[in-house]
Amino acid sequence: MSSIDDIFPAAIENTAGAPERRRRAGGGRGGDRGKGRKAPVTLRYRSILNTQQPSLLLSEEGLDAIHEASLKVLEEIGMDFMLAEARELLKAAGADVRPGSERVRFDRDLVMSLVTKAPGPFTLHARNSERNIEIGGRNIAFGQVASAPYCSDKDNGRRTGTQADFRNMIKLAQSYDIIHMTGGYPVEPTDLHASVRHLDCLSDLVKLTDKPFHAYSLGRERNLDALEIARIGRGISVEQMDAEPSLFTIINASSPLRYDAPMLQGIMEMSGRNQVVVITPFTLAGAMAPVTIAGALVQQNAEALAGIAFTQIVRPGAPVVYGGFTSNVDMKSGAPAFGTPEYMKAVMAGGQLARRYGIPYRTSNTCAANTLDAQSAYESMMSLWGVIQGGGNFIMHAAGWMEGGLTASFEKFILDVDMLQMVAEFLTPLDTSTDALAMDAISEVGPGGHYFGTAHTLSRYESAFYSPILSDWRNFESWSLAGQPTTFEHANRVWKETLAHYEAPALDPGIADELDDFVNRRKREGGVATDF
Amino acid sequence: MSSIDDIFPAAIENTAGAPERRRRAGGGRGGDRGKGRKAPVTLRYRSILNTQQPSLLLSEEGLDAIHEASLKVLEEIGMDFMLAEARELLKAAGADVRPGSERVRFDRDLVMSLVTKAPGPFTLHARNSERNIEIGGRNIAFGQVASAPYCSDKDNGRRTGTQADFRNMIKLAQSYDIIHMTGGYPVEPTDLHASVRHLDCLSDLVKLTDKPFHAYSLGRERNLDALEIARIGRGISVEQMDAEPSLFTIINASSPLRYDAPMLQGIMEMSGRNQVVVITPFTLAGAMAPVTIAGALVQQNAEALAGIAFTQIVRPGAPVVYGGFTSNVDMKSGAPAFGTPEYMKAVMAGGQLARRYGIPYRTSNTCAANTLDAQSAYESMMSLWGVIQGGGNFIMHAAGWMEGGLTASFEKFILDVDMLQMVAEFLTPLDTSTDALAMDAISEVGPGGHYFGTAHTLSRYESAFYSPILSDWRNFESWSLAGQPTTFEHANRVWKETLAHYEAPALDPGIADELDDFVNRRKREGGVATDF
Repeated sequence: MSSIDDIFPAAIENTAGAPERRRRAGGGRGGDRGKGRKAPVTLRYRSILNTQQPSLLLSEEGLDAIHEASLKVLEEIGMDFMLAEARELLKAAGADVRPGSERVRFDRDLVMSLVTKAPGPFTLHARNSERNIEIGGRNIAFGQVASAPYCSDKDNGRRTGTQADFRNMIKLAQSYDIIHMTGGYPVEPTDLHASVRHLDCLSDLVKLTDKPFHAYSLGRERNLDALEIARIGRGISVEQMDAEPSLFTIINASSPLRYDAPMLQGIMEMSGRNQVVVITPFTLAGAMAPVTIAGALVQQNAEALAGIAFTQIVRPGAPVVYGGFTSNVDMKSGAPAFGTPEYMKAVMAGGQLARRYGIPYRTSNTCAANTLDAQSAYESMMSLWGVIQGGGNFIMHAAGWMEGGLTASFEKFILDVDMLQMVAEFLTPLDTSTDALAMDAISEVGPGGHYFGTAHTLSRYESAFYSPILSDWRNFESWSLAGQPTTFEHANRVWKETLAHYEAPALDPGIADELDDFVNRRKREGGVATDF
Repeated sequence: MSSIDDIFPAAIENTAGAPERRRRAGGGRGGDRGKGRKAPVTLRYRSILNTQQPSLLLSEEGLDAIHEASLKVLEEIGMDFMLAEARELLKAAGADVRPGSERVRFDRDLVMSLVTKAPGPFTLHARNSERNIEIGGRNIAFGQVASAPYCSDKDNGRRTGTQADFRNMIKLAQSYDIIHMTGGYPVEPTDLHASVRHLDCLSDLVKLTDKPFHAYSLGRERNLDALEIARIGRGISVEQMDAEPSLFTIINASSPLRYDAPMLQGIMEMSGRNQVVVITPFTLAGAMAPVTIAGALVQQNAEALAGIAFTQIVRPGAPVVYGGFTSNVDMKSGAPAFGTPEYMKAVMAGGQLARRYGIPYRTSNTCAANTLDAQSAYESMMSLWGVIQGGGNFIMHAAGWMEGGLTASFEKFILDVDMLQMVAEFLTPLDTSTDALAMDAISEVGPGGHYFGTAHTLSRYESAFYSPILSDWRNFESWSLAGQPTTFEHANRVWKETLAHYEAPALDPGIADELDDFVNRRKREGGVATDF
């Protein structure tokens, strides 16, 4: 291979006048980095294990204080459960429910005895068993952006989502192994009527991907349709489906301190069938929660514990995830803020609470940026810092989330995939074997040499380091000759290359027919009633 | 204050059709976020304490393996010390030095007995005692970008640095309290002749800032001039200067396994005067170090221990910092890569090694990006993740470093300052006092309400959260009306606002005169001989 001076011409150019001269050797960055990478990058990352010890943001005393305060909230203030059937179940289980009121109060022993019934880690089954994911413990699973009303890409800008956008986003989720599951509709396909939208979308989630997927809890019928489609997709019996969690739903509290009817119906249908319920209060400090992060965490924890307790009333042992979504607002404008220092703290503290209860922890990769600029990257990377050091297990909105969730961005999806893969690489244990310590190579090269040509280097260099999808490492001159492309432009190229390479996962024709028959029948029946 | 619907109109717009609707409430982000912020933001961050437990990237066994291998390197291979006087000192101290050879080998007990003489945490004194910084332990100090041959800004692009650029950069470093020290010449002022450049620059470092500064070790005379200028700046005696470290120098190994003459002279002059020596091997895995991160760390540790040992031969107890600068190269092109997963691992492992020896740890905020795009942010944020979780104490290039150190960017400086301030905010302990738990506010608001108008919120909202310098949290419509500005454009505005607000720190007229007399005399003497 070439000499260090060929590789680092700047090492000559810049040796005069300042130390740390090799740092300047960066000037010699040659080559074609940033050009012609072939998408998709499938690094076969599976059930990523978090090798980092979770950070202790809260002291034991602080953790106790939040835990105790949240139980006090449930005892003294209570929560509104806006569904009579749910209140009946709660009353029968021993909660304080009074006629003519939606308010439900919980004795702390009742709450904790129910929460204790929740399982720890569990498996979420996919129609392709290779895509099954372990939820909880040291495992990390990443889900794609979900529920954005808008989507955007560099070519066509920001617009309301359509089925075409929906399908392209789903294809991207299928294309990268770092994405373990879809998380709902990455973008709302508003060109499909709401009465049948879920049927088309769920059908696509089975056909275009073989990864686990999500069912919206927007009324019992939609839950039932999703349960049947998941069962058909896996080609299993109702009994096997009930024994193997194969579908998940996100249940949001209507913060502060309320669960509305569709969410409670969702818990009853999904927990009742032993499927995965992800209880997620959305507690923006200063808006729907106290302006202090500790106060917002008290409310988050009270809402989460009440929801988790309800899942265990519906079906003891049903798989449930503790969701945290506490962030702050910009008090100058009321704008939600994400990927902030306050968000990092809330994510890490939420992890400590979830681990205290022995329940898998859901959190998110957030940002509030409007475009793929530096802000979008630092807000997401700060989110991931919090998520990883905070011991997150089930990571929603991990790729593609922009504008505080208003927009699913095709370029942001690629940026996030690259950042997630870098995080996964960081979590890969460092090899300190004798061979990796390289004593022979150090001896061979000796003082003043370089390592480009050594056998130790040549046998490893192609796979020694993570090769980013987007990072442009060309030197300034080569990068300028290429038109000074930004990350945004690279990401725009890559998502289109990825879609061009997309291949639908195999699906048994019998299953495809059964799925089509079900969807067509339900459409003939009119899907579900809508209120518009 | 306004109601939640005024603040979050999107909460109405988007309630139909999907859950996690409050996430969509992001759509209501109004206000003027991103406009009209006044620079500089001086948050009076001082001696930032790292509240995070350092991450354990290496197991005890892995740490031992690297430690042992590095001692074996020093015993069996040794290092070249390219200065006869240094070799004499080493020989007298018991190292294996042979006539006619620059090679020096060290018995492991000799190395460790010398390293043990190094002090732990110490104080680096500034001419303004309020700017003194604690180095080591849980303390974190950030230094500005140093030693870039080029500078750049959005208006004028990338160019060779001048004294004007140098001075503007120094003024920026003085303007933000999150920057604890300058780190050398942020950009090389190439319009000043090399024979006197150090005199003008050091004079500016005293006059334009009152923070600790760095002296290049590029020959004994430059060290002597810097020592005298630092003494004059503080207005103290030689004896007090020798008792109070007031100046630091970065000593790079000429990796692999060499220390060249200027660096060794620098250690002799600076450690001899009890000033701060930051020993920093620059070990790019795959170029000047083995292609494996573990192997590169073995070499880094061998070079660092040898350099630290030499400082303790020169003067036992002299303040010294363990510097790590291990990253990887892009093996496709030889381009140095920074802010990579491999860099994060090396930074964290380096921290474990430094703590093993009880010596303060120097690391850096790196990136290889050519412009202020997403890459520049994710590479720097990944660096900071490694730096903070890795227990870094003395953080060089913390603000303004681009292109692997080739360019000092005015906009990147502001971006980094914002990211550093966010990191500092993250490290601020979470208040879990009874008042912060907000039980009264939660009770007052109850289910279904909002917190905008509560006394708990109104008494806190102005200072409740960190207010970023650059993050643009306006909703898409407001941001579009403003011309869709990116972080790059915001940063361009801010650094110019900051310079417009710059005020020179007070300097005793007598000290200023003494400084000018010294600089003028040394200029009349011709400064230092140059080899060109």
